[in-house]
Amino acid sequence: MSILDKIFPAATWMRAYERGNLRADISAGLTTAVMLIPQGMAYAMLAGLPPIIGLYASTIPIILYALFGSSRELAVGPVAMVSLLVATALTPLAEAGSAEYVGYAVVLSLLVGVIQAGMGLLRAGFLVNFLSHPVVSGFTSAAALIIGLSQLKHLLGVDIPRSHHIHTILIAAFERASEIQPITLAIGAASIAALVVLKKRAPKLPRALIVVATTTVIVWAFDLASKGVAIVGDVPAGLPTPSMPSLEVDTLTQLAPTAIIISLVGFMESVSVAKAFASKNRYEIAPNQELVGLGVANLGAAVFSGYPVTGGFSRTAVNAQAGARTPMAGIFTAVVVIGTLLFLTPLFYYLPKAVLAAVIMTAVFGLIDVHEVKHLWKIDRTDLVLLLLTFGGTLSLGIEAGIGLGVGASLLWFVVQTTRPHAAVLGRLPGTTAYRNIERHPEAERFDGLLILRIDASFYFGNVTFLKELIRDAMAKQEAPVHTVILDASSVNRLDSSANGALGEIARSLRETGVRMVLAGLKGPVIDALEKNGIYRDVAGEDPHLSVHDAVEGVLSVPPPAGDAEPRSLLRNAS
Amino acid sequence: MSILDKIFPAATWMRAYERGNLRADISAGLTTAVMLIPQGMAYAMLAGLPPIIGLYASTIPIILYALFGSSRELAVGPVAMVSLLVATALTPLAEAGSAEYVGYAVVLSLLVGVIQAGMGLLRAGFLVNFLSHPVVSGFTSAAALIIGLSQLKHLLGVDIPRSHHIHTILIAAFERASEIQPITLAIGAASIAALVVLKKRAPKLPRALIVVATTTVIVWAFDLASKGVAIVGDVPAGLPTPSMPSLEVDTLTQLAPTAIIISLVGFMESVSVAKAFASKNRYEIAPNQELVGLGVANLGAAVFSGYPVTGGFSRTAVNAQAGARTPMAGIFTAVVVIGTLLFLTPLFYYLPKAVLAAVIMTAVFGLIDVHEVKHLWKIDRTDLVLLLLTFGGTLSLGIEAGIGLGVGASLLWFVVQTTRPHAAVLGRLPGTTAYRNIERHPEAERFDGLLILRIDASFYFGNVTFLKELIRDAMAKQEAPVHTVILDASSVNRLDSSANGALGEIARSLRETGVRMVLAGLKGPVIDALEKNGIYRDVAGEDPHLSVHDAVEGVLSVPPPAGDAEPRSLLRNAS
Repeated sequence: MSILDKIFPAATWMRAYERGNLRADISAGLTTAVMLIPQGMAYAMLAGLPPIIGLYASTIPIILYALFGSSRELAVGPVAMVSLLVATALTPLAEAGSAEYVGYAVVLSLLVGVIQAGMGLLRAGFLVNFLSHPVVSGFTSAAALIIGLSQLKHLLGVDIPRSHHIHTILIAAFERASEIQPITLAIGAASIAALVVLKKRAPKLPRALIVVATTTVIVWAFDLASKGVAIVGDVPAGLPTPSMPSLEVDTLTQLAPTAIIISLVGFMESVSVAKAFASKNRYEIAPNQELVGLGVANLGAAVFSGYPVTGGFSRTAVNAQAGARTPMAGIFTAVVVIGTLLFLTPLFYYLPKAVLAAVIMTAVFGLIDVHEVKHLWKIDRTDLVLLLLTFGGTLSLGIEAGIGLGVGASLLWFVVQTTRPHAAVLGRLPGTTAYRNIERHPEAERFDGLLILRIDASFYFGNVTFLKELIRDAMAKQEAPVHTVILDASSVNRLDSSANGALGEIARSLRETGVRMVLAGLKGPVIDALEKNGIYRDVAGEDPHLSVHDAVEGVLSVPPPAGDAEPRSLLRNAS
Repeated sequence: MSILDKIFPAATWMRAYERGNLRADISAGLTTAVMLIPQGMAYAMLAGLPPIIGLYASTIPIILYALFGSSRELAVGPVAMVSLLVATALTPLAEAGSAEYVGYAVVLSLLVGVIQAGMGLLRAGFLVNFLSHPVVSGFTSAAALIIGLSQLKHLLGVDIPRSHHIHTILIAAFERASEIQPITLAIGAASIAALVVLKKRAPKLPRALIVVATTTVIVWAFDLASKGVAIVGDVPAGLPTPSMPSLEVDTLTQLAPTAIIISLVGFMESVSVAKAFASKNRYEIAPNQELVGLGVANLGAAVFSGYPVTGGFSRTAVNAQAGARTPMAGIFTAVVVIGTLLFLTPLFYYLPKAVLAAVIMTAVFGLIDVHEVKHLWKIDRTDLVLLLLTFGGTLSLGIEAGIGLGVGASLLWFVVQTTRPHAAVLGRLPGTTAYRNIERHPEAERFDGLLILRIDASFYFGNVTFLKELIRDAMAKQEAPVHTVILDASSVNRLDSSANGALGEIARSLRETGVRMVLAGLKGPVIDALEKNGIYRDVAGEDPHLSVHDAVEGVLSVPPPAGDAEPRSLLRNAS
């Protein structure tokens, strides 16, 4: 692979492009565009932006991703979650829909582009791992609820202030029940019903387009706009002109935290979708290249009056189902959207906003993940607590704080666990060379005067105190006096200087009381660390043992240092 | 042990008190008091408080620790590090030495007392483990520098504003070189020389007392106070009267962060000293009981006009050396200080401040730990970086930020490491049942079609992606096609739900390509987690293997699923 191929992965697939793929790519591109146009406008509305911005974001950014990304099927563009994050960040700064607000959205795209491309070049894609599955699930469910309810105002035709507090929205809706516009509600409810039924009965039909077209015609035919149904109105024709986003330090500082969250959340959503389809079609995506691809797409959004984009789940599924074979499909999608911008915008004049709300609501309520809650209840209640904490945190404190809380709590829990690791006293399974926890295997043989301990963790500054106490307590619990402690160090993956020093101290203080310490199953990096500290012979014994069994054999063939027991003759079964 | 004994550990040693100990305890108590009186006044000055507050803090708090603590030798009272933290926290809030400033110091004692006692009751003493040795060393060295330089103004008799920036202090001292008071400097320098020489030549003499007494007499005899030598002046006679600290919410909120740091740093210093002497004299201290003891002592400091106290290194050493056998020694120390407060305060009138500065400087410069830097350079450069980061952070950003930076960086580094764990391809050591890294043991046997992998980490959300990629990459690197992947899971101590799901996915996707996955050496808690998820049989194979060797034997006696290789006959040595 040449350097050019690495920087510009499109070179590879373009050079090898087969004419046979063209038809499939065109068909997939068209199908995706038909879905993208109503969704793009709907999600822009969710982000508090004029619908046209959603279309702008569906042009150049898609083409750029096709050139720099590594997925063949990924459909990039506006998505619900990122749109919600944009709204949350910008609402306090400017009035939704104003020119100032649009300006902020453009700056946000720029920041997201720089962060994602930068992370990709620095190969920092692994950072996304810290968004664990329970955190993502809890956060997504909460965000879906917030997004869905944020559309209630369009569905009811009532003015409800934006809020991430569910009860605030519901109370406001209830208080203004008398102002509900029956025609708007009827159109919205019918659209939701149609979208749900079509999804079940005729999943291959372009349901969003059908509902959008039908309701637009109805509103136009019966002049419902004059009867209070809110419509999209003038959508300016033509392409966005390239411009430089304004770069004020204050604005950049204010938007930076959200930009980081959008970069990570957007990348995570995108990369998991891309991976799912890559594995289905037996190829690999490169996470850091994906970051570069999304970053460049967002830089494109910044220059061409868009707002932050990423790869979305539902459109990618449609794109793959419609037969997309190469990123060329994405380029065709963009071409269709550009055509629409040039010639078809007048058609959107009578499109009711309630229908866009219906599109958003049906899309996001499917994201509320009750199954995961049940699953975690069964397999891992700690992770369930983390899920619910993130869910609750997102609903009560807001999106960013909710994610932050979830990530912080999962890392803290991970670290706290390592300070009090699981440990076991081992015995030999009869007739084998395997040593197992005597509590789980009561048949395991024990040896008088020998304490075999396994501690299931790497040793580091966070658990050295625990380690010392554990050895002391385990020795105190033995019936016969202990002359040798064998520590199964096969779980010890690394030693920092604190643990390194502590092992030396433990060996020394045991030796002072006439007890020998033997480390078994030491791994290479741990041996290296002990040797550098000059205590390898001290803590591992004269003849380093490969396994617990070797250590036991070594110890039993050598008389105990105190000489007051004859362990070899005292083999006994604990059961 | 009764509940009373647990709450009130003094009951145990008081009931068993032997008359033979009395003499040793009285002698140790007296010796420690002789050291404590000048140090208490000096450290109070370092904290920005009138010297008498240091004596108040050396009365009731010491008695309370003797009743509630668990160490026999620990000498509680004002110490340098905590005094510095008090000064850092209070200087921005009020003028040093003012009544308001003293009031804040009292509130700080109260907060520290509540936090430490609360942590003790909640058994949260383990939190102190997060202050790793390199962080403590870096922070202590930096604090020692800051503390030492903060006394330069008293030593030179020049007004230098308080700062934690070394260069600011040095520049100020240089700029005001013409104002230096030669007599003050001479007294200070002579005191430092005397303290250093006495420490080396006559370590058993009460050197601080000797220097303090001598210089006080000289200043009185030659009337040096009228020649510009700053003296302590009036020290009010009598005991502090108990009072309730004022509890304004604003004050409490402002002081809370420092109170947390003082609680942790104070506890850490104290518990490490107490542990060192307990292990020397073959008994155990109870960390959570220590927290309760220090907490109650600080509550006492709050009620009796003191300031935060903890167990100090040098006085504890003196106390132990002088023969302290029980906490009764501490009670005698307090009695001597109380006697001094009642009858001897007029003696301190002519005590030069420069001498107190000399006491502080000689005490803290010994804390600058160059040895640890050399040691870490040899054994663990990462920990050296953490040490230097904390050192630099403390000098440039201040004490709290420095500690925070160090702790944050060590935890982050620990977590980041777990996301890219060490891994090895294993082979069998000829003639054994042990399997080791083929890179370290080129003589290890390998088996065609068999990939044996050991990943030295627990699997959790932070490294599942890495795990998947690692298996994929390792398979791609094999010369012969792989039919079975044996994963040595003996390092896996716990599975969270993300890792649990990922193992299932990996097994499934390998099976789809005709490759079998076998987990060997699974531990109890991991088996439990896999069983709860219903994938135990899926990922561990039909016959769960106790060790890698068992797994290899199991696989080699069973034909590979694809049937296109005869691995049993293809044993080959890689070297």
